[in-house]
Amino acid sequence: MNAQDQKFMQAAIQLSAEHMRAGHGGPFGAIITRGDEIIATGWNQVTSSNDPTAHAEVTAIRNAGAKLKNFQLNGCVLYTSCEPCPMCLGAAYWSRVDRLVYAATRQDAAAIGFDDEELYQELVLPIDKRKLPMQQILHADAAAVMGEWKTLPNKIHY
Amino acid sequence: MNAQDQKFMQAAIQLSAEHMRAGHGGPFGAIITRGDEIIATGWNQVTSSNDPTAHAEVTAIRNAGAKLKNFQLNGCVLYTSCEPCPMCLGAAYWSRVDRLVYAATRQDAAAIGFDDEELYQELVLPIDKRKLPMQQILHADAAAVMGEWKTLPNKIHY
Repeated sequence: MNAQDQKFMQAAIQLSAEHMRAGHGGPFGAIITRGDEIIATGWNQVTSSNDPTAHAEVTAIRNAGAKLKNFQLNGCVLYTSCEPCPMCLGAAYWSRVDRLVYAATRQDAAAIGFDDEELYQELVLPIDKRKLPMQQILHADAAAVMGEWKTLPNKIHY
Repeated sequence: MNAQDQKFMQAAIQLSAEHMRAGHGGPFGAIITRGDEIIATGWNQVTSSNDPTAHAEVTAIRNAGAKLKNFQLNGCVLYTSCEPCPMCLGAAYWSRVDRLVYAATRQDAAAIGFDDEELYQELVLPIDKRKLPMQQILHADAAAVMGEWKTLPNKIHY
């Protein structure tokens, strides 16, 4: 563990404690850095902002994109006080951060009543075995629009 | 396929086409309904809003939470023009929608250059086998904060 990682993770954990105690949401904090600079911070604010997606990591990634005016965070590191749930891990991949550092685990989250571990189990199940009922309709109609994407001359890939 | 599902999915696909053609982002649209009412809509706006998390489903879920002033969308249905990526599927679970209806598949997305399928493969790998480097530090410090969550008298679970 290098000193910089330790410093930034301590800051992420501090955010998790402060905002949990302030009633903003669950005990989770995150920080995005580039070099020795903190680019953005985030904490869980699901219940205080009525946003099911407002986990610490998603919030930090959104804030970092706004700050850098860029939808890709290459060169950045994501520090999060707890191993990301599948939503947040997906967000980390899409954001293109270079590296992710975490502290507590999905099992720690499960032990205090959060579904992270269960979500990891759900996502690998065949669609018809999941708890969330999923149904496919109108495949051809949507596939036609997606095919049009390939033909657009000025599209921005992400 | 019932008529209501068909109508709402056609609307989601229409959003995907309109906003793709307008240059707002990738070819993806989503709608959240309750009964016969459209509660919220969303479309991909990753590149136009500099937000790597602004997929159609995440955007629709955020908009629905704001509209209903609730962080849980029980009783709602999520229609999405393409099978959700792991980030969006995670968001759907956290939102507690009753049901999810999709049209195109993750393979359709892969065929036009999106990483959804690859992401599903990454998430099931052991942490040290993933493309995104992940490292754990300061476990005990974060676990201590999470333990404090259990003792808070007025916490709101989600």
